[in-house]
Parts: sequence; structure tokens; C-alpha cells
Amino acid sequence: MTQFINTKETLVTDAIDGLIRASGGALARLDGYPHIRVVLRTDWDRSRVALVSGGGSGHEPAHAGFVGQGMLTAAVCGDVFASPSVEAVLAGILAVTGPAGCLLIVKNYTGDRLNFGLAAERARAFGLNVEMVVVDDDVALPDLPQPRGIAGTLLVHKIAGAVADAGGDLAAVAKAAREVIGGAVSIGMSLGTCTVPGSPKSERFAAGEVELGLGIHGESGAERMQFSTAKDAIATVVARLRDATPAGPKVALVNNLGATTPLEMSVLTAELLASDIGADIRCLIGPGPLMTSLDMHGFSVSLLPLSGEVEALLRQPVAPHAWPPMVDVGPVGIQPMPDGLTPLRPKASADATTEAFLARCCDILIAEENQLNALDSHSGDGDTGSTLAGAARALKGAIPQLPLADLTQLYRAIGNELSQTMGGSSGVLLAIYFSAVGDAAASGHGRARAFAAGLARVQEVGGASLGDRTMIDALAPALAALPEGIPAAAKAARKGADATAAMGKAGAGRASYISADRLVGHNDPGAEAVALLFEKLAES
Amino acid sequence: MTQFINTKETLVTDAIDGLIRASGGALARLDGYPHIRVVLRTDWDRSRVALVSGGGSGHEPAHAGFVGQGMLTAAVCGDVFASPSVEAVLAGILAVTGPAGCLLIVKNYTGDRLNFGLAAERARAFGLNVEMVVVDDDVALPDLPQPRGIAGTLLVHKIAGAVADAGGDLAAVAKAAREVIGGAVSIGMSLGTCTVPGSPKSERFAAGEVELGLGIHGESGAERMQFSTAKDAIATVVARLRDATPAGPKVALVNNLGATTPLEMSVLTAELLASDIGADIRCLIGPGPLMTSLDMHGFSVSLLPLSGEVEALLRQPVAPHAWPPMVDVGPVGIQPMPDGLTPLRPKASADATTEAFLARCCDILIAEENQLNALDSHSGDGDTGSTLAGAARALKGAIPQLPLADLTQLYRAIGNELSQTMGGSSGVLLAIYFSAVGDAAASGHGRARAFAAGLARVQEVGGASLGDRTMIDALAPALAALPEGIPAAAKAARKGADATAAMGKAGAGRASYISADRLVGHNDPGAEAVALLFEKLAES
Repeated sequence: MTQFINTKETLVTDAIDGLIRASGGALARLDGYPHIRVVLRTDWDRSRVALVSGGGSGHEPAHAGFVGQGMLTAAVCGDVFASPSVEAVLAGILAVTGPAGCLLIVKNYTGDRLNFGLAAERARAFGLNVEMVVVDDDVALPDLPQPRGIAGTLLVHKIAGAVADAGGDLAAVAKAAREVIGGAVSIGMSLGTCTVPGSPKSERFAAGEVELGLGIHGESGAERMQFSTAKDAIATVVARLRDATPAGPKVALVNNLGATTPLEMSVLTAELLASDIGADIRCLIGPGPLMTSLDMHGFSVSLLPLSGEVEALLRQPVAPHAWPPMVDVGPVGIQPMPDGLTPLRPKASADATTEAFLARCCDILIAEENQLNALDSHSGDGDTGSTLAGAARALKGAIPQLPLADLTQLYRAIGNELSQTMGGSSGVLLAIYFSAVGDAAASGHGRARAFAAGLARVQEVGGASLGDRTMIDALAPALAALPEGIPAAAKAARKGADATAAMGKAGAGRASYISADRLVGHNDPGAEAVALLFEKLAES
Repeated sequence: MTQFINTKETLVTDAIDGLIRASGGALARLDGYPHIRVVLRTDWDRSRVALVSGGGSGHEPAHAGFVGQGMLTAAVCGDVFASPSVEAVLAGILAVTGPAGCLLIVKNYTGDRLNFGLAAERARAFGLNVEMVVVDDDVALPDLPQPRGIAGTLLVHKIAGAVADAGGDLAAVAKAAREVIGGAVSIGMSLGTCTVPGSPKSERFAAGEVELGLGIHGESGAERMQFSTAKDAIATVVARLRDATPAGPKVALVNNLGATTPLEMSVLTAELLASDIGADIRCLIGPGPLMTSLDMHGFSVSLLPLSGEVEALLRQPVAPHAWPPMVDVGPVGIQPMPDGLTPLRPKASADATTEAFLARCCDILIAEENQLNALDSHSGDGDTGSTLAGAARALKGAIPQLPLADLTQLYRAIGNELSQTMGGSSGVLLAIYFSAVGDAAASGHGRARAFAAGLARVQEVGGASLGDRTMIDALAPALAALPEGIPAAAKAARKGADATAAMGKAGAGRASYISADRLVGHNDPGAEAVALLFEKLAES
């Protein structure tokens, strides 16, 4: 079993129970399990024409997912890809049909036609007014006398449903349905077959090939061809549809056959609207899984000429959430980029003390490059020293452009420099640190409080706490001791950094994936860098 | 390329364009292609707290599909499974943030934390009020200090979105978000990995195995185990969730990770609601694809304790259709079966002439069994004679129970007998024929008109016309000639049946799949049966 089911035999009844429980009371079923599986609206009063559809399962949300106000009154569910029995269809008809009568909407497959047809006959023997329409929207095989019914069937559900909901009589509902059937054309394309529960997946065509014009039961497509791009795939599909329907305004229904990702469906939709017939497509339903073929990696496009009446009926809201509201097709709305993405470079200013201090910090980190790399080789990829030294070199080079006389501006400027020149997580975290310090300083906080604000932000974003074997373990105690002077801070940083050697579990960052035996006995290189920086500053 | 895309490089921009065009004008994007991909609401006036989320693509409809009133204000889209850049996030923030400020909702992945975190820092430098929350709902690895953010993130979107939409200030929106983060727990399970565009699909575990506790980027699950049934899968998932959250009323979000069929999702939902924690699940969101992992064949379940306030916020309608409305969980509604499924057996009555005629018909078909089988062997599986003879034997045996004195009842009774005893399409079609004749007779039509009504119905349901090489080719002319007597009907039927030998293309039924060279030169066996029946009746 390679699917999330219990048994093949209980699949459909299990799934219907799940569907009904997820309907919030909108759906119920007839008490006919296991053989009679009819899903019906709970808010039905038989005051209008009933719409009954169904067929084999495996096409969900069709058809049970479209039961509800404005669409179907009941769905009769067969086994996967197998028509329901005459008795099941009859049960569905009898359960929902009142004086206004019932329209059966049937996809053009022999089993469905016969079983729904005989059920209709039986229902008529009870004096019920039953009509049946057969949907044959598939244009895959233009010469076929009996085209299949595929996703275009849903347009019949929707439009006939809207006419019935508005109180139309059976003749009007059937007429609307037949007009949709006369106008709807569909074609499907797939990169693979589907997995029928209990059977191995057929691999009848190779990866990189597509089948065009396939039904919804895993049957072979009308043609097989090489796949190149979504654009070409749509061009092929569009050429067939264009041959089968007159030019003019249309609604398109874009259907996911099962396992196509939403990303792909959106790409296909964009290509359809940009295609030769794109300008004719005024309204859109989907993309989405509407008439699926189990897990088929494919899609179908259905088109229907759009009159004012058709548009109004399609636009009526319906109760089933599985039905996506029709939208008007417009251009891709594009809004201008906001200002401020490139940080304004503050005006450079001079301050000899600050400049000397900053240069000294950079020199220290440059000097310790090899030592820190060696330490990092125990728990990482050995580049902590090079990352810090590289950033220090860049920062040192930028000193003439920095606002050295304005500490608040300087912090932010250092943050911007680091985020642009220093790769990896540590670059971003240091940039966040200096930006947050700058913000706090701009808010009028003193140095100690500004540094603490930066530390807090780094912890919030980076997710590391004390004891997580990161640079925080040295930086936090150093900043806490800093009001007592740099030597005190250096001592605190050293103690913190050395404590990381005993930490066998890194709580954040890349080292969290490294086992304890590789970590214990070596200081965390980030913490060590902080300790070395303070120690060397204390020396000078 | 085995996906419906154009190029890997343009995938995300192509898909966003498709999404926006399918939004009916509700969505737009920033003019920052190709590097900055921000999708935003077109109806946004900055009067409320903005909600910005995003991250790597490949999780659709998350996050761009959830942009709209009541949920996100903007989504920042990275490449597939890759965090968007700091500049992209900053562009998103700047584009939508007004005086009320902005909440960033970030899934707990290092890249997202850092890039969103630094962008927030930069936005603050503009004086904007920006807060960030990090979602860590995954309970796959209880000891992990940094649990991942997965589908539970969507509950944060929804609830924070409702608070913001109601005019809550940034502190209130962030507080609501943090409360959801504190309470939400999720876990995923999958039967396979996902296909990253441009890369071959990893097959790291065998068919029949599942991984439990996997993220949404194709990374390995926390555990691998043998899959047995949907019930067992849910029991495993439920055990982990139960360990991670206190008992009490909950909402469950049931998420399709990509390629799981709606049938499977419904089965899993039914099992979840029937599980040990089923009684605690008072409300349900989904099942549906909400936070996908490309085409992963898996699902996740998220739980959130349900207070009155949480419930009210989740119940608020939202604009994005991709978000399914939350429903109350109730029992499976079951309605009684309608009466009338078992046809009432009409009271038997005697009529010597009718009895003799009916018996004679049956005897003729029984006698022709072998001849018709031989004919069918050219174009079918050689059983037309046996099918008809079997039905004739059963019907002859049923004669004592038939209402022979009431022709109207008799037609219907014959139809019921045939539908119960005669297999295949022809049994159903003959049943339809006799039922429709009975209906017409019951409506007061004479024999000729009743027979014509039956023929019309058979053609409507079966889809065959004259010339389609079916029994219609003999039956239609025979019925047309019947008012002139049985010999005339027999002559017409023979002419019609013999004409089928020249028809190289069957327009309906199984023979429509047979090539002309196998058909031409042999009468259609159904038409031949009709001709033989009338000829033998004419002899007697």
C-alpha cells in the first residue's frame, strides 16, 4: 500500500465520511453503505429542480465536493473509476427529487450513461420528472462520435445549478445545461499516469514525454509528444481548443488533474492568458484541482463562450468551497518600488580617537584570521577567521567614508557595511547588532543600554541564548562588564569563551548539527573571536 | 524538465504573474523583478497594522495565496526553498507599512530569521514600527532547541490577520501572534520526497515506508517507519501531538503537503476525527493544500487550543479563496434510504395469447444462441448469443409471475427482469427500452408510439444513431414497419441488419474500437438478433 488509505474496498466510504465531517453539517449521506454512496445537501427542501451527478470516484472534489447551494443537490459515488449502480443512482434521485423534478448530469462514459439512464427510467415509473444530459466536452479526438466528458462538466454543474437555484423549471435548467454542453470544449495534458489504489502505477510513457488529450481515468492520451516548456505545452493545448471553438469572449476553467503543484498551475495559467487565445479569455475559474484523475501530474483547460447570461450565472456565489469564484482577467498589476531600499550613505566626518579605535579592532580581527580558522575547523568549515578578517578589511577600507564624528550614525553605517561585505549568518547578525545599537542610540539611550538593545535583538533574531555555544556566550558577559572598562570586559569575555569548550551541544547555528565529541574541548570560534578582540583591545 | 515550467530561473516570477492574473485584481506585485518578488493587496490603505510574511517558494498557496483582507498584507517570495533577500523583505515592509506599523511573521529557519530580522532593523531606521514573530510549531524533534515553522504558521496569519483587520494595534497583533505560536503544534508525515525543479527526485526511502516529522523543504524526517494504513498513520501522528499539547478543545488544520489526493486527505481527516484526540477537535480547517512542499505525497496536522476568542478570530471570513472556512466538527449526517428502490413486483395475471407470444420470443433467442455467438466472435467476445439466450431463459422462467393481462405493467416488468438477469450494456439498454415503452403506454400512448418512445430513449442513453452498426439498425426499421404487420417488420429488420455488414465503423458500443477490416462482411450481432427474432416470429 503506497497511499494514505485503509483498504481499497473501504476507500470511497472512508473518504465520504471525511468529506461530510469536514463540511460543517452542510452535507450528509444516505444510509446505504457500503453499496449505495450518495452525498446530499442537508439544507434541501425539494422546492426547486434537483441536480444529481456522479460517476466513478477518483475525481475529487468532483462530484461530492460540489454538492451544495448553487451547484449539485446530490452526488452518487461509484468505486474509483467505476460507475455507480443503477440502484445507487435511483436512490440519489428518489432522495432529492420533488415536484420540480430532477436533472441528471452525466459524463459521457458508457457505464454512466447506462446506469444513470436506467435509473432515470425507473424514477419516471414513480411519476417523477427526470431529465438527463450527457456532457462530451473532450476535443482530444475530433473524429470520435462519442467524445468523453471531462472538466467541462463542472461548468454544467455551475450554470444549471444557478438556473435551478433561481427557481428555473426543469425545462429551463435542462436547456441551460444543454447550451453549456454545446459550447464547452476541453483538453487535457499530462506528464504521467495516475496511481489507481491497489494497482501499481502504469509507466507507459517516459519521463520528459507528455500525453495530450487524455481522459480522467488513466486511459492513454490521443497523442504522445516530447515536453519542452510550459509555454509550448500551452501552445499545443491552445491550438486544439482554437480549432474546436469559435473566436470570441470566453471563460476558461483551468484544472489541476491531481499532483501538479500550485507553482506549475500558476505558470500554466500565466502562459494560457499570454497565448494566442489569451485576449479572448475574459474570465477565469481556477487554477485548482476541480476534476482530478487521482494523482495525475497534468492539467486541463476548458473553454466556454461567454454571453452576458452565462457570465451572470457563473458569477453567482455557491456554497461549496471547492468551487473557486470566477474572476475577471486583467493585466498583472505592478506597483512602484518603495524608496529607501539603498541605505543613504551618511556624510563622512572625522574623529581621530574613533578612527584609531575602529582601525585597531579591524587589525585585531585580521591578525587572528588563521587562529580562528583553525578553531572553526573542529566544528565548522574552518572559515570563521577568514569571514571576520574579510569583513574587517572591508570595514577598514571604508573608514574614510564613515561618519566617525556621529556615533549614532556610525553604528548604523557599520551595520550596513557589514551586511554588504560579510557573508553568512554571522554577517547578518553583526549587521543587526550594529543597526539595533544605532537605533537605540538614536532614541537617546546611552552606550550600555544601546549595546544591550543590540544584543537583545541578535538573540531574538538568531535565537541563541547564553549557554548555546555561540558568540553570545562571550559577548553578553563582556557587554555586562564593559561599564567597568575594557580589561574587565576582556576578562568576562575570556571566561565566557572558555566555558563554551565544555558545551557539548550547540543550541543554535550550524554547530547544532555537530555531535558532542567533536565539540567538547574546543572553544566556539565566534565566542573566541569576541574574547580575542576584547583581550587585544585591553592590551593596547 | 519533468515539470510544467519554463525555466527554473523564471519559475517563481512566472508563477506569481499567474497568481496575480487569477486574482481578479485583488493582488499586485512590486516592480522589482527578477530579484524582488513581493505580492501585495491592491485594496490596502495602510490604515491598519500590516502583516508581512514569506520565505522560500514551493509552499503555495503559502504565502502569496494568503495575501488579502483578513490575512497577509504582503508576501515576500524567495526562490524555491530559499529565503528572500534582505532587500526584498525590506521592499515588502516599506511598500505596505504605515503609521500603525508592521508585523513580520517568519517561519523558524535561519535564513528567514536573519533576512527578515535585518530587514526589520533597516525598516526601523526609517522610523517604522516593526515587530517580528518566529513560528516554531513543529514537534517532530522534541529536544530540538529551534523547532521548525511549518503549517501552524498559517494559524498565525489567520489570527493575527483578524486582529489587525479589526483595528488592533501592533502590540495587540503581535501578542495574538505570539499566543498562537505558544499554543500551536504540528507534525507531518510523507510517503515520498518532493521534486525540486531542476533536480532529480530524491528516493531516499522505499515505497511502503513513511517518514514522520519532516519539514517542508524535502529534508529528512525525524523517523522512518513502515506504512500500514491511514488509521495507523494517524495514530502515530496523534500520539506525537498529544504529547506536545494539553488536552482540551482544539482546532485542527489538516494540510496536504502537495500530491496527496483529495480521497486520501478525506480518509485521513475521517481517521483524525475518529482518533484518540478526535473528541477534542471541535473545529476543522481543511483538509486542503495550504502549506505544501512542492509535490510531496504527505500531510501534516496542526492543532491549536480553542478559546472563545481564538474561535471567533478564526471564524472571521477572509478574502483569499485559498483559505478554507473553518467548520464545526459534527457527526456524519446519515439520512434514511428512500422507498421504492426494490421495484414492486406487479400482481401476476394470465393471458394465453401474450404468454404464448412471449414464450415464443424467448424460444427463438434460445435457439439462435450459437449462431449469434459465432457472429459476435468477429467483432466482440463471442457472447451476444449467450447473453440473449440467458436472459430469454430467465424471462421464460419468470412468465408465471408476470402481469400478462396488463400490457403496460408487463413492459415495465420485462424491463425489470432484464435489468436483473442480463449483464452488460445490452441488458441495461433493453431494460431501458421496455421501461420507457411501459411509461409511454402508461401515459396512454398506443403501441406504435410507445415502441417509438422506447427506441428514442435507448438512442438518447446509448448514444447510437441509425448507421452506427448497432441493434438500432434493425430495430428502428422493424418498429417503423410494425403497423403493417410482423412479416413487414421482419423484412425491414433483415434489410437493416444486412446493411450493417457494409458498415466499417461502429459509432457506439464496444465495436467502435474495432478496425474496419474485422467488421466489414459480417452483420452486427445485435442487429442480426433483432432480424432473426422478427423473421422467426413471422414464420409462426
